[in-house]
Amino acid sequence: MTEVNLGLYFLSELVGTAMLILLGCGVVANVVLAKTKGFGGGFLMVNWGWGLAVFAGVLVSAYSGAILNPAVGIGLLIAGKITFTMFLVATAAELIGAIVGAVLCWAAYRQHFDAEEDPASKLGVFSTGPAIRSYGHNLITEIIGTFVLVFAIFAFADYGDIEVGVPGGLGPLTALPVALIVVGIGASLGGPTGYAINPARDLGPRIAHAILPIKGKGSSDWAYSWVPVVGPLIGGAIAALAAPVLLGLAA
Amino acid sequence: MTEVNLGLYFLSELVGTAMLILLGCGVVANVVLAKTKGFGGGFLMVNWGWGLAVFAGVLVSAYSGAILNPAVGIGLLIAGKITFTMFLVATAAELIGAIVGAVLCWAAYRQHFDAEEDPASKLGVFSTGPAIRSYGHNLITEIIGTFVLVFAIFAFADYGDIEVGVPGGLGPLTALPVALIVVGIGASLGGPTGYAINPARDLGPRIAHAILPIKGKGSSDWAYSWVPVVGPLIGGAIAALAAPVLLGLAA
Amino acid sequence: MTEVNLGLYFLSELVGTAMLILLGCGVVANVVLAKTKGFGGGFLMVNWGWGLAVFAGVLVSAYSGAILNPAVGIGLLIAGKITFTMFLVATAAELIGAIVGAVLCWAAYRQHFDAEEDPASKLGVFSTGPAIRSYGHNLITEIIGTFVLVFAIFAFADYGDIEVGVPGGLGPLTALPVALIVVGIGASLGGPTGYAINPARDLGPRIAHAILPIKGKGSSDWAYSWVPVVGPLIGGAIAALAAPVLLGLAA
Amino acid sequence: MTEVNLGLYFLSELVGTAMLILLGCGVVANVVLAKTKGFGGGFLMVNWGWGLAVFAGVLVSAYSGAILNPAVGIGLLIAGKITFTMFLVATAAELIGAIVGAVLCWAAYRQHFDAEEDPASKLGVFSTGPAIRSYGHNLITEIIGTFVLVFAIFAFADYGDIEVGVPGGLGPLTALPVALIVVGIGASLGGPTGYAINPARDLGPRIAHAILPIKGKGSSDWAYSWVPVVGPLIGGAIAALAAPVLLGLAA
Repeated sequence: MTEVNLGLYFLSELVGTAMLILLGCGVVANVVLAKTKGFGGGFLMVNWGWGLAVFAGVLVSAYSGAILNPAVGIGLLIAGKITFTMFLVATAAELIGAIVGAVLCWAAYRQHFDAEEDPASKLGVFSTGPAIRSYGHNLITEIIGTFVLVFAIFAFADYGDIEVGVPGGLGPLTALPVALIVVGIGASLGGPTGYAINPARDLGPRIAHAILPIKGKGSSDWAYSWVPVVGPLIGGAIAALAAPVLLGLAA
Repeated sequence: MTEVNLGLYFLSELVGTAMLILLGCGVVANVVLAKTKGFGGGFLMVNWGWGLAVFAGVLVSAYSGAILNPAVGIGLLIAGKITFTMFLVATAAELIGAIVGAVLCWAAYRQHFDAEEDPASKLGVFSTGPAIRSYGHNLITEIIGTFVLVFAIFAFADYGDIEVGVPGGLGPLTALPVALIVVGIGASLGGPTGYAINPARDLGPRIAHAILPIKGKGSSDWAYSWVPVVGPLIGGAIAALAAPVLLGLAA
Repeated sequence: MTEVNLGLYFLSELVGTAMLILLGCGVVANVVLAKTKGFGGGFLMVNWGWGLAVFAGVLVSAYSGAILNPAVGIGLLIAGKITFTMFLVATAAELIGAIVGAVLCWAAYRQHFDAEEDPASKLGVFSTGPAIRSYGHNLITEIIGTFVLVFAIFAFADYGDIEVGVPGGLGPLTALPVALIVVGIGASLGGPTGYAINPARDLGPRIAHAILPIKGKGSSDWAYSWVPVVGPLIGGAIAALAAPVLLGLAA
Repeated sequence: MTEVNLGLYFLSELVGTAMLILLGCGVVANVVLAKTKGFGGGFLMVNWGWGLAVFAGVLVSAYSGAILNPAVGIGLLIAGKITFTMFLVATAAELIGAIVGAVLCWAAYRQHFDAEEDPASKLGVFSTGPAIRSYGHNLITEIIGTFVLVFAIFAFADYGDIEVGVPGGLGPLTALPVALIVVGIGASLGGPTGYAINPARDLGPRIAHAILPIKGKGSSDWAYSWVPVVGPLIGGAIAALAAPVLLGLAA
């Protein structure tokens, strides 16, 4: 394992996750907020927006290997690819980066937040919420979606012999496949919960929503907030445990 | 031909096909079931969803070369790329994997199956059905669609000198072209029958539909079930026989 | 220049163009004909369908270098990349291949042609027609669209040092960029005339429309048929003449 | 730094930007003007159209390294990748190229400009305008969007060790990632202002709009014209200053 500069590692995860959330929350703002040019653009547009947000986030986070997601991080930790210190540093950076990205998204769409009347639409730009609320079922959906993401990353990294989670690791070369996987997860498994599949992606913007002086905002729905944190962590952990067996890596 | 571990070969096809069906049936669930976030997302969204399902399935099925489809398998068998034993093992794994994937899709969309009132929409998540029922014409459409898929795979594999159907063969490097071909077949030839173009993709989820305790489910439409099995097998076989001639491989 | 087997060259162009037209006309059939699953899927779906039709056509036409379009052929002829004999052989093959592809598309959508009442929609599956008829303006639009296609191919081939129009030339490696260019031309310049940008693509299916026993078909609109033949040939020729100057290839 | 032929450098930027604007303004014309085949095609279609316009523009501008955007140019200037002379030559070429592209777009859609009754739709084909007018907020949105573009280009160029802004530099190999980034910025940050993110892209077509004899055209909205010039230049400059720090390039 290459020597890691933890300061740059932290900065790289923060920058990549801020980019991810700026563009990811941005496409939701464009589709749901009042008077935008992309209003009513449809779910496929949201899927491409989030996929390309991952693409951009990975591109600008080469130093740290572009983890950008504590569910991926916990998988890498379980697989022994990163140390516990690296996991903690990355997770903290991702959470802060997600808050920064959400604030920038709010700045870009400031007038449309003001023009929007429905508080639920405003929260929807920041954080996910279930189409039909039922914590157990919502949790299962998030577990399955995140399993797909982390499992696919393990498969790709293994086949391409790509180091993940370390400097120069999972970087620009892998930005496109990961982005396409996220487009696919969104289109296919995003229907019930809006596919958080990333604790930082959901919790960071929710914190931003709670803090920011958004005109006419409603509740930050903290009651649901644990689902898109716990579900993805479970899904990422299962993927890391299952990957060596299910991908035939022992052979 | 590399020595093949048939157990890992079986597992790899099962895992890849389960991934394919989870995401593929998932996008249909998202577009057709009640109260999902992607409801009414359109046919292009379905096409991208299935194409990226193939992308993910191929990525996680590197060991076996990601056949994932008995119609591709029969083509490889005819072309002498895989043995009859490998064909049987792969086909069995694909059928079981497809059932597993369909069950996972049902788990992810459990509440939306409950909220949906139309039994036809529920079956539509699992298996294909014709827009206008006429077994002869439906069969022709499935033959043509599958011919395109298997013929294109042969062309790509030949040009790129890629081994298919064997360990380390048709793998991640070819995931993108195959995925794009499937997006294209869906958009262009999916109109009449919903493009099964894969016996396991249709039969496995139909078995799952018949077995699962889905609330308010209707018939599994077994009368149609042979079309998306026989049509693709014929299309794949024709492609394998035609490829050496039509691609000029004898030269 | 490699020794060319003209028989295989002919076959390769025929097969590639048949694939192009089957999928290209297919997506129009899916979007416009009655009772299809993709009915009303939108113009972007048509654009992706045609782009991926090019992708598939190029993949299966590696031997001849995948010209697939007399407007590209005339450009290659002017640039001295292919001989006049090769141009004639390729063009004849493309026209026949386009007819074959249109017949296969009709076979795949047979019942939907029967169910469709509007003769204009039926012709629209086969050939292009102007949104606002005015031969002069329609011609200009086709010239500009085809210029973009052929000019971009020259740029890509030059930069990548790729031989075009010869065995093993413009092949699978370039399928994706060419496909994306066609998606882009369709979205951006397809509004007025439906972007034939290829004489064989328009004339071949129009001949098929005239010959096939399509129930309730109307006129094949021969009055317009010269526009999507002459316009693309002019556009391709201008691109070939302009490319050395505008791409700075003399330097 | 390779010896640069400034005449070819100028020509290359002019040609690439003309291609960018022809296709970019073209997709807007297709979606908003009366009686086009793509009318009402949606914002995602506009995003793909502009992204693939960048793809085509980069492909045909290999000699100069495909800057195509004064906001990218100012970033390269600040980073010391190009000289001030090169920046001026490129910027002049981009502005002229953008006017040429806009004129070609008008020629391709001539009849649809005549058929369109709303002057705002006509101007919208050429130049961007805010969804909710407020120069300060609009400026912030353009700064953020352009920052994302230029920052991502720096990240990609650095990681891939690609020279930008010089002959043979940022060329076809990088056309796809840059195109995807532009699709993503459009979907995610295009809602409030229509994402000029390029002074030449907005000012050139606005000049064309002012000069061309467009039937029933209204104001060219010069009052807003400084926003999509100043905002992108600020965003590009910030990206160039921030990149070495935020990408950890000092390490």
